Amino acid sequence: MNGAQALISTLVDHGVRVCFANPGTSEMHFVAALDTVPQMRGVLTLFEGVATGAADGYARIADEPAAVLLHLGPGLGNGLANLHNARRAHVPAVVVVGDHATYHKKYDAPLESDIDSVAQTVSGWVRRTMAVADVAADTAAAIASARAHRHIATLILPADVSWGEGASEVKEVAAQPAAVLHEAEQIESALRSGEPTVIMVGGDATGADGLSAAVRLAQACGAQVLCETFPTRLERGAGLPAVERLAYFAEAATAQLAGARHLVLAGAPHPVSFFAYPGKPSDLVPDGCAVHTLAGPVGARAALSVLADRIAPGETAAIAALSRPSLPSGPLNVVTSADVIGALLPEHAIVVDESNTSGVLLAQATAGAPAHDWLTLTGGAIGYALPVSVGAAIAAPERPVLCLESDGSAMYTISALWTQAREQLDVTTVVYANRAYDILRIELQRVGAEAVGERPGPKAESLLDLTSPTLDFVRISKGMGVPARRVGTAEELADALRWAFDEPGPHLIEAVMPSITG
Amino acid sequence: MNGAQALISTLVDHGVRVCFANPGTSEMHFVAALDTVPQMRGVLTLFEGVATGAADGYARIADEPAAVLLHLGPGLGNGLANLHNARRAHVPAVVVVGDHATYHKKYDAPLESDIDSVAQTVSGWVRRTMAVADVAADTAAAIASARAHRHIATLILPADVSWGEGASEVKEVAAQPAAVLHEAEQIESALRSGEPTVIMVGGDATGADGLSAAVRLAQACGAQVLCETFPTRLERGAGLPAVERLAYFAEAATAQLAGARHLVLAGAPHPVSFFAYPGKPSDLVPDGCAVHTLAGPVGARAALSVLADRIAPGETAAIAALSRPSLPSGPLNVVTSADVIGALLPEHAIVVDESNTSGVLLAQATAGAPAHDWLTLTGGAIGYALPVSVGAAIAAPERPVLCLESDGSAMYTISALWTQAREQLDVTTVVYANRAYDILRIELQRVGAEAVGERPGPKAESLLDLTSPTLDFVRISKGMGVPARRVGTAEELADALRWAFDEPGPHLIEAVMPSITG
Repeated sequence: MNGAQALISTLVDHGVRVCFANPGTSEMHFVAALDTVPQMRGVLTLFEGVATGAADGYARIADEPAAVLLHLGPGLGNGLANLHNARRAHVPAVVVVGDHATYHKKYDAPLESDIDSVAQTVSGWVRRTMAVADVAADTAAAIASARAHRHIATLILPADVSWGEGASEVKEVAAQPAAVLHEAEQIESALRSGEPTVIMVGGDATGADGLSAAVRLAQACGAQVLCETFPTRLERGAGLPAVERLAYFAEAATAQLAGARHLVLAGAPHPVSFFAYPGKPSDLVPDGCAVHTLAGPVGARAALSVLADRIAPGETAAIAALSRPSLPSGPLNVVTSADVIGALLPEHAIVVDESNTSGVLLAQATAGAPAHDWLTLTGGAIGYALPVSVGAAIAAPERPVLCLESDGSAMYTISALWTQAREQLDVTTVVYANRAYDILRIELQRVGAEAVGERPGPKAESLLDLTSPTLDFVRISKGMGVPARRVGTAEELADALRWAFDEPGPHLIEAVMPSITG
Repeated sequence: MNGAQALISTLVDHGVRVCFANPGTSEMHFVAALDTVPQMRGVLTLFEGVATGAADGYARIADEPAAVLLHLGPGLGNGLANLHNARRAHVPAVVVVGDHATYHKKYDAPLESDIDSVAQTVSGWVRRTMAVADVAADTAAAIASARAHRHIATLILPADVSWGEGASEVKEVAAQPAAVLHEAEQIESALRSGEPTVIMVGGDATGADGLSAAVRLAQACGAQVLCETFPTRLERGAGLPAVERLAYFAEAATAQLAGARHLVLAGAPHPVSFFAYPGKPSDLVPDGCAVHTLAGPVGARAALSVLADRIAPGETAAIAALSRPSLPSGPLNVVTSADVIGALLPEHAIVVDESNTSGVLLAQATAGAPAHDWLTLTGGAIGYALPVSVGAAIAAPERPVLCLESDGSAMYTISALWTQAREQLDVTTVVYANRAYDILRIELQRVGAEAVGERPGPKAESLLDLTSPTLDFVRISKGMGVPARRVGTAEELADALRWAFDEPGPHLIEAVMPSITG
């Protein structure tokens, strides 16, 4: 058995059955070995950022790592932005980066670069396998580490280690860390104090179990529950606890936290503003509020359950009722587009949300829709939604995936559409075409670079504007094999969504919308 | 003056007049400052790899650095592959990476990451500016370093340093290194020895002056001249010295070097195979051949001129005659498509070549075409040609740019078409649509992963195949605002090239071709 065969065998033996790939010459033995291990599914992407984003989406839904196959340093570079998002999502992933043969590196051939340093910036675990005999053990260690710590494990695999013979298989069972409660006594006393307390959930506590435990605690103690701003996977909708998210804009988030005397972090990070703004605090915790960390992002669900069983044993968490907006009519805007989504969201949908400014009213419009998962941009690196939709759809082929994508963000990883078509994934993509980096028009004023209420100068405006030429997403989508329609009214969006949800395979809807900055 | 204004003023004062940008919130002061400095041109890209590739293309043609504006670590990640190519091209570039405010970094906000480590892997110079008062001096130092060493200088600019007031301007003149001849005496004696000698040119010696000097030396001493495999910018065609390039495939390169007793490296790296192959040597220098390094990539032109004036003062370099192939007819293939290009290549064209397997016969078909520049994939990170074409066209608006692009490579940075349309650049893109990663089918056998002559297994083949669905580049191109046609015969390609060359602005031609692996 050669190294590549041992790698793939070890992956499938340990339950890793999907590999998102964009290979090159140094990965050819891996590619050839796929035909010797029938349990491994190879999914081709045309750009590495699609592969890494797909692994993120897969892990968010399957709760298991996928493998990613990348070609040397430039391949890792192309995949880096979505690995950054995956790191912030605390998902497990096994990234295999092929490299030059061990003896070839000293020649500084054109593709030679410092893979290890780049990998370290996004990975919780990095190893370079230097001998064929180590491939299986290193692969098993990567999987175990990714699972246990919910991080990215990167294995750098030189070509000669991949093609060398004499590898063997190993079995290794991943250790799952036990639930650890930090500051449990202080938190219990804070909750029982009667003082205004916010429980902020995040990490692995944003599923039904974690949210229920948090809401039970809040009900029993008169506290409030908030969800971190960008959860990896928020379970919500009818029949599930309704939990508001901390706002993106610091001003709004500050208002949500105003008056709190205790903040209990259950998987969520300490609340800080997304960016710094001149003259405004970065730390969003109000003065006089004590911060208690119950658990980090891994183990928060378990910690909340233990605490809820101790403090609120008889409590049943309140849940959201089924309640959809009526189907609106007339031109599309942030109100009507959100209401159409709320009215038609299918049961058990997976929503991948990168709607940015166009989606500001989606949360309330969908709060009473049938139960669904809401995935968000955890790391702020735009271009995540189309690739994450690929991985989510592969993880849950029986569930409809609704990808809500901004036009600007879509263009970073647009070739994900081709992989959706190739794999015939049941993904409906709505591209909000407001034809601007609209969030930046807002941020330009918020950072004080332009006076509030003034339009940017012509050169600044030209860097925020996506007209001239207008992107035609219908043509682009059809060009990659995904049927597409353009809509401008609520009625047309509703028709298009029914068409997309009813027909198997991927579809794209370009929703032409006014910019919210007018 | 704030930091951002000082940065842009310093750039334009030192001759850097173009900035390829994909900004975010932390760069908003830079964007706003553009309107206060009229000499700076901001060019928006929809993906950072387009911005970094454009800076590479600009520098190759202008022989001057452009600036690039990127948004934190993920923006740098997206730009990394084409920065890798630019590093290998030895071009100057000033990369500005916006970062969180200095005091905000400790909060580990979602976009926080290790920018410095990633930047180090592609940059010859990295500095993080920590005070407003340092912005101008750091910017001047970056420009000077980029120019002097022809490398990437990366300036990391925290948001508060960008928005802070109290910056001033500085003037600093870049020191140009003097020509340094290494091993000059040994090289002179090797050249005069009468033993088989190869002069390999590369780096800055692949322009008319450097090539003439090398050919004069070769003529005087009975030596042979070869060009490195992937030159940054090779001046060639009628009226210029005709110099063959070292082949990509190691077997062919070995044949070119067979029998040499001396190898003189003038800007070219030591010849090694692009990848390692089992059982084959990585080092391509024949046994018994002495290697002498005349100069590295920067200064090779000057060193060759000094040596030629000393050894071959009376010699005039032979030049290629004007000689074009006849226009062929019939279905497109590697022969007919190359002959059409050779027959119609406009005078003073800039050819950006990423044609890979489809372009194997282009070099000979264009050897006698009117004088032109030939740009190649210096670092092996595919997806370079469309972005480099953007920068080349901006550097030389009066020259036609012909971008020869493979379908697989095109999809990494396809949104470059939108920037071509926005800036109305005179770029003609030919996409060779063989609908496969054809080079990998060849490499799969060359690395021994599949037996020679056998087809890959179905799963391996599926990772090398770009049908299912077929990419429709005409739709994709029109969707980004670039007029496009599909052609399948030599006559149609000729008609389409005339249409594209005659009409101002960008055009795309999808040339449907058989794969060379059949």
